[in-house]
Amino acid sequence: MDRFPYPVARVGIIGGGQLGRMLVKAAKRLGCTCVVLDPTPNSPAGQVAGHQIVGHFQDPAKLRELVSVCDVTTYDIEDVDTETLVVLEREGYRIYPEPHVLAEVQDKLRQKERLAAAGVATVEFAPLEHADPAAFAAFGYPLVQKARRGGYDGRGVAVMASPSDYRRHLAVPSYLERFVTADKELAVLVARGRDGDYRTYPVAEMCFRPGENILDLLLAPARIPDATADAARELARRAVDAIGGIGIFGVEMFLTGDGRLLVNEVAPRTHNSGHYTIEACLTNQFEQHLRAILGLPLGATEQLSPAAMINLLGEPDHGGRPVICGLAAALAIPGVSVHFYGKASTRPHRKMGHVTVLDADIEAARRKAEQVREHLRITGEEPL
Amino acid sequence: MDRFPYPVARVGIIGGGQLGRMLVKAAKRLGCTCVVLDPTPNSPAGQVAGHQIVGHFQDPAKLRELVSVCDVTTYDIEDVDTETLVVLEREGYRIYPEPHVLAEVQDKLRQKERLAAAGVATVEFAPLEHADPAAFAAFGYPLVQKARRGGYDGRGVAVMASPSDYRRHLAVPSYLERFVTADKELAVLVARGRDGDYRTYPVAEMCFRPGENILDLLLAPARIPDATADAARELARRAVDAIGGIGIFGVEMFLTGDGRLLVNEVAPRTHNSGHYTIEACLTNQFEQHLRAILGLPLGATEQLSPAAMINLLGEPDHGGRPVICGLAAALAIPGVSVHFYGKASTRPHRKMGHVTVLDADIEAARRKAEQVREHLRITGEEPL
Repeated sequence: MDRFPYPVARVGIIGGGQLGRMLVKAAKRLGCTCVVLDPTPNSPAGQVAGHQIVGHFQDPAKLRELVSVCDVTTYDIEDVDTETLVVLEREGYRIYPEPHVLAEVQDKLRQKERLAAAGVATVEFAPLEHADPAAFAAFGYPLVQKARRGGYDGRGVAVMASPSDYRRHLAVPSYLERFVTADKELAVLVARGRDGDYRTYPVAEMCFRPGENILDLLLAPARIPDATADAARELARRAVDAIGGIGIFGVEMFLTGDGRLLVNEVAPRTHNSGHYTIEACLTNQFEQHLRAILGLPLGATEQLSPAAMINLLGEPDHGGRPVICGLAAALAIPGVSVHFYGKASTRPHRKMGHVTVLDADIEAARRKAEQVREHLRITGEEPL
Repeated sequence: MDRFPYPVARVGIIGGGQLGRMLVKAAKRLGCTCVVLDPTPNSPAGQVAGHQIVGHFQDPAKLRELVSVCDVTTYDIEDVDTETLVVLEREGYRIYPEPHVLAEVQDKLRQKERLAAAGVATVEFAPLEHADPAAFAAFGYPLVQKARRGGYDGRGVAVMASPSDYRRHLAVPSYLERFVTADKELAVLVARGRDGDYRTYPVAEMCFRPGENILDLLLAPARIPDATADAARELARRAVDAIGGIGIFGVEMFLTGDGRLLVNEVAPRTHNSGHYTIEACLTNQFEQHLRAILGLPLGATEQLSPAAMINLLGEPDHGGRPVICGLAAALAIPGVSVHFYGKASTRPHRKMGHVTVLDADIEAARRKAEQVREHLRITGEEPL
């Protein structure tokens, strides 16, 4: 019989954003206490953790301070100093996903090479020694140039239709990918426990606004045939198996017009596409991640209701103290759950919160989510 | 269009227990900040609020300190100093449920008189000037003597089968009730908004261990005919209407062998019988209470899945730092959600947490909850 003197664990979280905030809530429910490392005092996660170390996730001394007061440490963000963490891991501290896994996933080219080596279907790609027009032309247009590190929400990605687009190339270490016309973009959460157990979640469908790479609307389950959903979950499981590591992973993939599933990217953390699991699934992604890294049994992933999710982004031309407009109108729609992240200031397109809508009919959920988006706007007290 | 400069509201909570803790989580999600008043530093609610005033809920100066820094104030407990709050309300501070309502509900006899006057079916009762054997005999055995104030979880209740039980009578202001052999004990949550709108939740069935008055197992929906459930929800709505007040109310009632529904008690706050709504309903009771007191539209109360709930009580003969035993075994059961309240020490029968189990089959949910109770035990480091 297991025996946990309270707290069940002291959980360290590198990064105090919204993912950390929702992780803290799940952790406290499970009988854990939390310490957050973030450079911004009173960060979204720090506000609920009650204990924050103010410091940067790249600062070796602060990382050591965090890890040394915790039983297990994990991440809210990917862009951390893995070198220090690898040293701490060797000293015996528990850090999940393991720092060497994180180091490999951080480098998107190495991630792709690893997936390809394991036979996981991905978009065709090629390493790039340095950017020059001949190399791009040799690979062939249309193409996508991607930064090896630090890409997020559309940053670090350049889509090029023809050689005349070369002038927009990224001047950072990068690689090239075939431009894929996807029918749908899908996401599958996969949890991997310390005992090697797996759980996959229902497939979610990500809709992006044309020309933007920030998730605009998410539908779960995806509107795809059951056989395609089963194949997507299996492909995601194989992708995470190829990457290795313990915790939850967000696997993004394309469904092409000819029915192929191609892995786009694996995020080694809780994922924006999985926020719907808080309301809709038996075990939400945050609790699942904790169960995995704490060595507890993984939870059931069944979905209780179709769900739609939208991000609440800061309006363009607004900054400063957030002003929430249209909240009452949004909450008047049945099945709406609003999540604000507690950020003290807004800026254009900043993720300020999200909304999940449950409805027995997925199309009705989608329409309600679109209504919420019409009503609910995050402006700010300072015009920009 | 409504417009809320962030935070949407500063919410004051009198009492920092588990109800306050879950209220804080819902409040932060809705874009509110919270201040908790509780005599114990680092109280369950204070741990997540990030701002606690350390002081007693009966201390007029501390109540004023709390109310004056908040946009709206509410309660985690009933046993507060309503005199001070009535004064603060007159000064224009928003306090919900309104202090004069709380004052009336706190006195269980006045509560019953009010319900009876409104024609709400309750258990037959009689005021008691002072306890003497003749008065008890005149009312007739078997009877239940109940304290007018401060009763909770079986405290302040004396069940007497015959005159020989009179020696166990309570020496406090009290009243007498007919002893009812109930087929089932039911509970219905009712929310009442600032605009007069109502919402009732599905009927829950409360099972008590023989001889104890602490909720042992809760099942939702109750295993009763639909017509009975509809009648119970309507009776609960009428009870809350009779009481008046804004916020959420837990209405406990008896279902007698001959099919009558009798209101037992109205609790003017979120209720132990409503914890299942966190996982099982479109809007949980904590968010619903906040919507009501903030003047936001009330949320849908539909239940997505049958649910069973058990309280996690401190084991007898144990105190001190809690030791959680059998957590892994409990979490291995599909559909189990564990909620620990963050209490730093345990004592016999103290509420340390609760567990909700979702399952499409209510009997399966019940069996799983009973399995969890077998496995999961809260012992302590200090034997008593």
